[in-house]
Amino acid sequence: MGSLITLTTDFGLQDGYVGVMKGVILGIAPACQLVDLSHDIAPQQVGAAAFVVYSAYRYFPPSTVHLVVVDPGVGTERRPIAVRTPRGLFVAPDNGVLGYVLDVEEEWDAVHLTERRFWLPAVSQTFHGRDIFAPCAAHLAAGVPLEQLGPSIGDPVLRPLPRPHAIDARRVAGVALYIDRFGNIVTNLPADYRLAGRPAAEWGMALCAVAGSRRACGLLSAYGAAPAGAALLLVGSSGFIEIALAQGNVAAAWDVCVGEPIVFEVHDLTQA
Amino acid sequence: MGSLITLTTDFGLQDGYVGVMKGVILGIAPACQLVDLSHDIAPQQVGAAAFVVYSAYRYFPPSTVHLVVVDPGVGTERRPIAVRTPRGLFVAPDNGVLGYVLDVEEEWDAVHLTERRFWLPAVSQTFHGRDIFAPCAAHLAAGVPLEQLGPSIGDPVLRPLPRPHAIDARRVAGVALYIDRFGNIVTNLPADYRLAGRPAAEWGMALCAVAGSRRACGLLSAYGAAPAGAALLLVGSSGFIEIALAQGNVAAAWDVCVGEPIVFEVHDLTQA
Amino acid sequence: MGSLITLTTDFGLQDGYVGVMKGVILGIAPACQLVDLSHDIAPQQVGAAAFVVYSAYRYFPPSTVHLVVVDPGVGTERRPIAVRTPRGLFVAPDNGVLGYVLDVEEEWDAVHLTERRFWLPAVSQTFHGRDIFAPCAAHLAAGVPLEQLGPSIGDPVLRPLPRPHAIDARRVAGVALYIDRFGNIVTNLPADYRLAGRPAAEWGMALCAVAGSRRACGLLSAYGAAPAGAALLLVGSSGFIEIALAQGNVAAAWDVCVGEPIVFEVHDLTQA
Repeated sequence: MGSLITLTTDFGLQDGYVGVMKGVILGIAPACQLVDLSHDIAPQQVGAAAFVVYSAYRYFPPSTVHLVVVDPGVGTERRPIAVRTPRGLFVAPDNGVLGYVLDVEEEWDAVHLTERRFWLPAVSQTFHGRDIFAPCAAHLAAGVPLEQLGPSIGDPVLRPLPRPHAIDARRVAGVALYIDRFGNIVTNLPADYRLAGRPAAEWGMALCAVAGSRRACGLLSAYGAAPAGAALLLVGSSGFIEIALAQGNVAAAWDVCVGEPIVFEVHDLTQA
Repeated sequence: MGSLITLTTDFGLQDGYVGVMKGVILGIAPACQLVDLSHDIAPQQVGAAAFVVYSAYRYFPPSTVHLVVVDPGVGTERRPIAVRTPRGLFVAPDNGVLGYVLDVEEEWDAVHLTERRFWLPAVSQTFHGRDIFAPCAAHLAAGVPLEQLGPSIGDPVLRPLPRPHAIDARRVAGVALYIDRFGNIVTNLPADYRLAGRPAAEWGMALCAVAGSRRACGLLSAYGAAPAGAALLLVGSSGFIEIALAQGNVAAAWDVCVGEPIVFEVHDLTQA
Repeated sequence: MGSLITLTTDFGLQDGYVGVMKGVILGIAPACQLVDLSHDIAPQQVGAAAFVVYSAYRYFPPSTVHLVVVDPGVGTERRPIAVRTPRGLFVAPDNGVLGYVLDVEEEWDAVHLTERRFWLPAVSQTFHGRDIFAPCAAHLAAGVPLEQLGPSIGDPVLRPLPRPHAIDARRVAGVALYIDRFGNIVTNLPADYRLAGRPAAEWGMALCAVAGSRRACGLLSAYGAAPAGAALLLVGSSGFIEIALAQGNVAAAWDVCVGEPIVFEVHDLTQA
């Protein structure tokens, strides 16, 4: 059986662009399995794509090639790159979209995709996803070693995951890292962040999250554990603390966007 | 070649959640084929998911595993279950989402998914689709017998298909069973429902469907057979009588929701 | 490994209709790979489907079967057909949806799909995608010769690509051929259309496109090469000149629909 390629783009599914990329891939690597991660990344939102890929790649076999085409700079000088880590391979424009992966993977090798023999013969100015990224991903999946795709580079664009930091003994400064389609706010506070020796996942009713003048208190075990309309906190599926509104859209209700500060307040952990 | 798994969720396709489930599945059962039924089930609408799965499963090979994750109760006490029928296997939360299938399948075996060795090692509170349902579906597709996934249960949550019933010799009481994205109203009147010895599919111009103060008359053979804006009746692709509006959205125009009563009136079948 | 089938419909992905077609296909041709081109063709827009298929098919292996179900005439007399060309096979209603392909492929054979042994046993009035088109595509992909599916026909519905024509030495009359989900207007001016011996792709700053009272000037190399809000011209990924609005939706801003005239003005090519 063949290997696996995932696809993440901001192309949408209406115009056939993603299908064309798959045609190119299967022409080169016919035994590949293809899995869509998302094609509804908001146009050119590199950070959203970085988060979706970061949340997903660890759940795929380590031989998987993750193809990410969110590429506001298509047609400009930004480099096309490929990256190999112990937990996955990646093909993307060098614009930070792999930044969260590079941040958590200690070992990686990267190359600049310059070897035109692995591209389509004709390269358009507007669709490098089809003409460069898809064929390179297919060749990687088909067994071409990373090193043959182009020269090694040591300086891919980085985009570290923003870390929360303690303000004082009771408060931690964080940010909104991602907002999902339900309007849940994924914060950057990891469930294993420790205060007074206890991980955030155990702070329970002692925890509040504050964004501007709005506040959600109480880390619950399920969306359904709060009454409709109540704001609540959860350990999200990506391992970060999330803010949700039972049967509602908290990001819209609170008018919170990605990157905005969230302050975590922790009250009397001895009672959590 | 491997077996087949279908996926039905209310996760949408934006955030990568479905892709992650597929990564989990393909890590366990790499030769599987994956087919999406729908990921745009309205959030937590168990009935809509039940209908989509019911309409689809008979068109798949009987060895197919249908994975259904519409799960308002995730994180609460509701059971994760798997069901085997002669025409398909199913993995879902025990909330009635398999109810229409259980209603029409005379033979079935069900188990409570309790064997943690078939789950992911770490189980989150909010994403059992990834951590419990997807891996169990993959193990089933890879050949693990149903019985190994957990103890047999005899009491899965039922959700019978609502049956139409005769009011008198000329009228049948039904309901709106499902509304598709075009706004067509799928009713619960089967095309082979008989009155005066003749199946509904043959009632032709003798049939009217009434919802509140609105009325559609005449069972036609094609959407295009009525002038734009006219309400019409059709034998829908699921085998039920449907109400449509030529080039329009009848559910919106009539303000009809799933579950609302529809009365079928049959006039002078001798002339149908 | 099996062959490849692409799917293009206006069914959307909400109701499971596309999934059902895939179940039918995989029941007949279990080793097939399935690739979605688009299921968000605007309802019954045959021209949009024709363009999406035309833009995509050349990027797939020539043994690929392209299944296209945009079928306003389902249930009426329009013929179901299959077409074989040197660069792909096609299964569709005979309504012009294959017209752009037939226009550019010099050799083709077409048959009327009449052999019911290749259909599902029961054929509904409203879902020939499931009952006729999907099974015929699957049998073709599984190796059944085109000729067995029905009698040869020589008169499929044609739909030629509209050609631009010179108005005078400096002006070319064209039309809006397709509008993508970003609102970019794909015109019918091929990048290799020649004026004064030079292809359109090289006209650079000498080129303007005019739609009614609106005008975009300057063929740039990337969306990002113009300031936000500026209209620009590009060589699109399908090989036609496109009109775009940097970070905007030009079709909406200019109120341009498919089929509307676009005039190309070329100024002093010696300075292009």
